[in-house]
Amino acid sequence: MTFAATVWNENIHEVLEPHIMPFYPAGIHGAVADALYEQLGDAVTVHTATLDQEEHGLTESVLANTDVLFWWGHLGHDRVDDAIVERVQRQVLSGMGLVVLHSGHFSKIFTRLLGTTCSLAWRDDADREVVWTTAPGHPIAKGVPSPLVIEHHETYGEFFDVPEPEETVFISSFSGGEVFRSGLTYRRGRGRIFYFSPGDQKYPVYLHPDVRRVLGNAARWAAGDDFRRVPAVSHPALGELIETAARRR
Amino acid sequence: MTFAATVWNENIHEVLEPHIMPFYPAGIHGAVADALYEQLGDAVTVHTATLDQEEHGLTESVLANTDVLFWWGHLGHDRVDDAIVERVQRQVLSGMGLVVLHSGHFSKIFTRLLGTTCSLAWRDDADREVVWTTAPGHPIAKGVPSPLVIEHHETYGEFFDVPEPEETVFISSFSGGEVFRSGLTYRRGRGRIFYFSPGDQKYPVYLHPDVRRVLGNAARWAAGDDFRRVPAVSHPALGELIETAARRR
Amino acid sequence: MTFAATVWNENIHEVLEPHIMPFYPAGIHGAVADALYEQLGDAVTVHTATLDQEEHGLTESVLANTDVLFWWGHLGHDRVDDAIVERVQRQVLSGMGLVVLHSGHFSKIFTRLLGTTCSLAWRDDADREVVWTTAPGHPIAKGVPSPLVIEHHETYGEFFDVPEPEETVFISSFSGGEVFRSGLTYRRGRGRIFYFSPGDQKYPVYLHPDVRRVLGNAARWAAGDDFRRVPAVSHPALGELIETAARRR
Amino acid sequence: MTFAATVWNENIHEVLEPHIMPFYPAGIHGAVADALYEQLGDAVTVHTATLDQEEHGLTESVLANTDVLFWWGHLGHDRVDDAIVERVQRQVLSGMGLVVLHSGHFSKIFTRLLGTTCSLAWRDDADREVVWTTAPGHPIAKGVPSPLVIEHHETYGEFFDVPEPEETVFISSFSGGEVFRSGLTYRRGRGRIFYFSPGDQKYPVYLHPDVRRVLGNAARWAAGDDFRRVPAVSHPALGELIETAARRR
Repeated sequence: MTFAATVWNENIHEVLEPHIMPFYPAGIHGAVADALYEQLGDAVTVHTATLDQEEHGLTESVLANTDVLFWWGHLGHDRVDDAIVERVQRQVLSGMGLVVLHSGHFSKIFTRLLGTTCSLAWRDDADREVVWTTAPGHPIAKGVPSPLVIEHHETYGEFFDVPEPEETVFISSFSGGEVFRSGLTYRRGRGRIFYFSPGDQKYPVYLHPDVRRVLGNAARWAAGDDFRRVPAVSHPALGELIETAARRR
Repeated sequence: MTFAATVWNENIHEVLEPHIMPFYPAGIHGAVADALYEQLGDAVTVHTATLDQEEHGLTESVLANTDVLFWWGHLGHDRVDDAIVERVQRQVLSGMGLVVLHSGHFSKIFTRLLGTTCSLAWRDDADREVVWTTAPGHPIAKGVPSPLVIEHHETYGEFFDVPEPEETVFISSFSGGEVFRSGLTYRRGRGRIFYFSPGDQKYPVYLHPDVRRVLGNAARWAAGDDFRRVPAVSHPALGELIETAARRR
Repeated sequence: MTFAATVWNENIHEVLEPHIMPFYPAGIHGAVADALYEQLGDAVTVHTATLDQEEHGLTESVLANTDVLFWWGHLGHDRVDDAIVERVQRQVLSGMGLVVLHSGHFSKIFTRLLGTTCSLAWRDDADREVVWTTAPGHPIAKGVPSPLVIEHHETYGEFFDVPEPEETVFISSFSGGEVFRSGLTYRRGRGRIFYFSPGDQKYPVYLHPDVRRVLGNAARWAAGDDFRRVPAVSHPALGELIETAARRR
Repeated sequence: MTFAATVWNENIHEVLEPHIMPFYPAGIHGAVADALYEQLGDAVTVHTATLDQEEHGLTESVLANTDVLFWWGHLGHDRVDDAIVERVQRQVLSGMGLVVLHSGHFSKIFTRLLGTTCSLAWRDDADREVVWTTAPGHPIAKGVPSPLVIEHHETYGEFFDVPEPEETVFISSFSGGEVFRSGLTYRRGRGRIFYFSPGDQKYPVYLHPDVRRVLGNAARWAAGDDFRRVPAVSHPALGELIETAARRR
């Protein structure tokens, strides 16, 4: 059984200041795509898409053929077209998986699906981030050491204004004493959502073998199946409803 | 300790077809306000607001002085100004309570806070609705008989496309065999949200003594306290964070 | 990838009053095992075990080789040895899946894992049960029609005294107007638990094609992976903790 | 409106090694009781009880008159009589609040209500614990600074083997980099449970003004109301159920 991942990246830091990320010669999307191939091998086919493409590379056809969408954005949140955001939201509600990475917490698609500000505390002092597993039986934590240590990273801290998640899979601490719920799952409509905070553009986080393992696990966990349908109003006539159900058997 | 409730109603059925609701001479908002006074007495002051008022009656000042907002809408969802919806959302995230009633499931404010379609199945055949308590220790269920029977009501059925709630307080069945999660709680930002499905315009549901009890309990449960602040990004400098905290003690 | 299911049944009705279940010539365990083979084919190997066997058929070795355990009990809950219950609990916490069926809500293993009385309302008048899907994107609901109609069944009703579940997958209504949360998921330790209420001994419920589909989906969803470890206290020395983690990379 | 709190303490360290806690001349139970009076004033009456008393001081009468029970235990978990534990559990399920403190995570009452091992990682190196609020709108967090800093405390770390809570109110970090979910809410039956990890016997944690505020808030939040009933099986005859409900209106 194979599935299709699309890795979306705004691809702005890559163009404006490529010198800050010499470790990502193919961009953040390239690194994430590479991690998925490494972790999942033949089980996945990976496609990438960026902000500057026609329809941000997220045409109806691309999304209809995507089982799980990865999202990395930072400087360009406002430049994402509302119509495309609605399109992505509709696909998530109909069953497409969504993995939102790092500064994507402020993306239109994430705040729209969660309904909160998704704000947080932050500073960037190259602290050590220590990522602890708080749901060791969860498929996304499979094979991930606890703690997973990232030697240098931007600091994200609580209060992270998101709804209470279905499961808190990871919680991080930072050298300064902050904590952050760094791996959270949600279900919205028929779709599954995973937020994972590691991955600032200035640090080679997506080369970390255990972070890559999380990306692979998350892709597999969030990927929807073939069936896709936006939840919609139904209006059965009296009596028909139950009879239909009985006939269906 | 007293608190302030604002009951918002689009007030459209009342104007277009008052004959369908002879039992609500003061409108749906009037009936809900009356229920709150009956249940809570001196503990509450109730204000009402409607769609056709300036800023829909929901000025910054009104909202800043509202501890819990009730919302009833149906035909006029699209006529609610987006700027007002954002204003209400900001107040909820900062700590104002919100009680969404019946067809308000499709209101802009509810779908924006929940992030899903909030669609459902429905028909209107004056079925009997039987409301069962599934969280008997919850403050909203206090003193409410299980089941609470509404002799005639519009039918709402699953699948109700909302996020998994924090607590499922009530589940209803209907004569036709449908089930519906009719009382659901959520927390978003600092605010508490309760959705309660009874209350179609064609049936005198808000005169039912036990429904009125639910309204009173919900007002008390959702009402925020004096402190109100929208979650926002903070950006502490290195070292300052913890020292500040220590000084604060 | 294959996994191993063990279907445990107290096997008392089968011995005392086989005439009430002519449709289960191989017992309830036989019917459930048959459903799993039908639904999962080569992906599963199924083993059965019963109360009267040595150690109730649940030796350490059997459990260690079980990825998901099905549990059906009714008259014999008290006859299940406490030591065996503890053994099963330890395996669930270490990662074995558990699917508890129907009257198993009162089993020692279920009440011990959930911590509540697990009591409910019931009567047996051969009502029609209508099972609605409330989480259509959940793997356990895959391919299951909503509603799934069981023409005649014992009635279970709310209040069902269980903890708020991680996800409410199914809710049933009955001819008498009762509702019941009939499909609920929990995670305890590393293990996944699914409770599914259909399956009284007097009705051929496990021959229903869509019920069998639920059993197959539940087996696949709950089955743990190879790694199994009971959560335990760790006591790292100062400094060692993080260094160990760093070395592990 | 006033309510009654009972503070239970095993009172073993106080007897065996009083020199380690010169800051608690009246024992841990005395310090907690004092905090409740300080925070809640006339709203509360506080009673204390200890392991060595008849029935551990938790007679049916004491519990029936307790709205919220605080529990501190460490060395004596095994000496708590199973019959008393069952009695406490029954009261919690019937609506009494329960606040479990620190090493009480391993108490019989807590593990029985949660169903998991409740194990964790620990060491004791007088680390600084920084307690962050992750649910700022929750009544238990009211007026509590985020972070709340405890200069020296025993270290508790993840994985904390408890069920996914209803709300994660606090998460702590420690000097060594560990994180711990230090404030968690659960509902079981009609009762509310709060676990709060600060409070090792060797550190004067219950003298910390903000910790005392948490204790006061928790007492108020968890306290049940007058109505108390263990969830139990009901067995209505066909037809009677709904008619009864209708009559009740």
